[in-house]
Amino acid sequence: MTDVEQTGVDTKSTQDSTQGTESKVAGATVWFTGLPSAGKSTIAHALADELVRAGVDVHVLDGDEVRPYLSKGLGFSREDRDINVVRIGYVARLLSSHGVVTLVPVIAPYADARKKVRADHRENEVPFAEVFVSTSVEVTEQRDVKGLYAKARRGEISGMTGIDDPYEEPTSAELVIDTAEVALTDSVSMTKALTSALLGRDLP
Amino acid sequence: MTDVEQTGVDTKSTQDSTQGTESKVAGATVWFTGLPSAGKSTIAHALADELVRAGVDVHVLDGDEVRPYLSKGLGFSREDRDINVVRIGYVARLLSSHGVVTLVPVIAPYADARKKVRADHRENEVPFAEVFVSTSVEVTEQRDVKGLYAKARRGEISGMTGIDDPYEEPTSAELVIDTAEVALTDSVSMTKALTSALLGRDLP
Repeated sequence: MTDVEQTGVDTKSTQDSTQGTESKVAGATVWFTGLPSAGKSTIAHALADELVRAGVDVHVLDGDEVRPYLSKGLGFSREDRDINVVRIGYVARLLSSHGVVTLVPVIAPYADARKKVRADHRENEVPFAEVFVSTSVEVTEQRDVKGLYAKARRGEISGMTGIDDPYEEPTSAELVIDTAEVALTDSVSMTKALTSALLGRDLP
Repeated sequence: MTDVEQTGVDTKSTQDSTQGTESKVAGATVWFTGLPSAGKSTIAHALADELVRAGVDVHVLDGDEVRPYLSKGLGFSREDRDINVVRIGYVARLLSSHGVVTLVPVIAPYADARKKVRADHRENEVPFAEVFVSTSVEVTEQRDVKGLYAKARRGEISGMTGIDDPYEEPTSAELVIDTAEVALTDSVSMTKALTSALLGRDLP
């Protein structure tokens, strides 16, 4: 918990009277950024299961879930990727402002867009933290859960983050987890402790 | 209340275990469709104030609020309008699935897109109702809250719903309110009763 506390997690509760909004319990957004196959979704879903067991209202805004609704019409240019990240961040902020713990396992390759999402949360007094799933490209390419690295190497797809599209590593993430080194149960424990700090309350 | 009950309002609570979601209290989405200046936002915000006083967790997804986040890059073609409506409907459904009463004062001129939003709510077992704010174009053009009708008449803007862009009137709205005939307090009473029916519980 010491690392988490040192990073100055914001535990303020949320109130936005201009939108007719009044949340009784503060939520929080935890963004999992990292390369494809880094382990973002695995940790987010395992954490979600753990939080549900603890009685927390959770939503996982997974890339696969939001794509047909939020990402429609967007491509893989930097501009489109940034619109996508800021848009998902807005939806996460809305949910979290109503007491939901919103977990977002989405690559978000550009530091600038991640910064915008963090600022949007701060402006609206919604707790936010970033988990950098720092698994190296050597490991993620070996895993290649969706076969995308192989396709990129064969030249069948382009704009693959980590291969021919940039990934800007976070320098101010609240947590850094290399899933080649850290077991899933430990990743869940650490992210659960982070969530607890964001919410400003103990979780069973 | 009789009219509301006759329309077969769905009061099922929400549970979506695949997303790690567990809402304790069901929310509901109420969509206010109608011409510009029909009175959609006025009713929605007055209802929101009333619901907040009743201790309900409310969010108004106003067109002006969502535009910079959800509507970015979209124009006024039928396709873009439909993407916008379905996207806003998805965000409303997410919020409502976590116990929020989500009020959506957004024109939504095409019946097909409104039908998609209703179906998306039904598939996810989230209560949904449509309020047709049926104020006639003669009245809305006189009000012209944002000066858009005047601009459209002068040819300064095009694609103005009700002038040179279609508005398909709902045939299956749970409530129909002509704000030229119905006082705001009565509109709030009726929509509050509708919300109560959707939630399946009395509101103080």
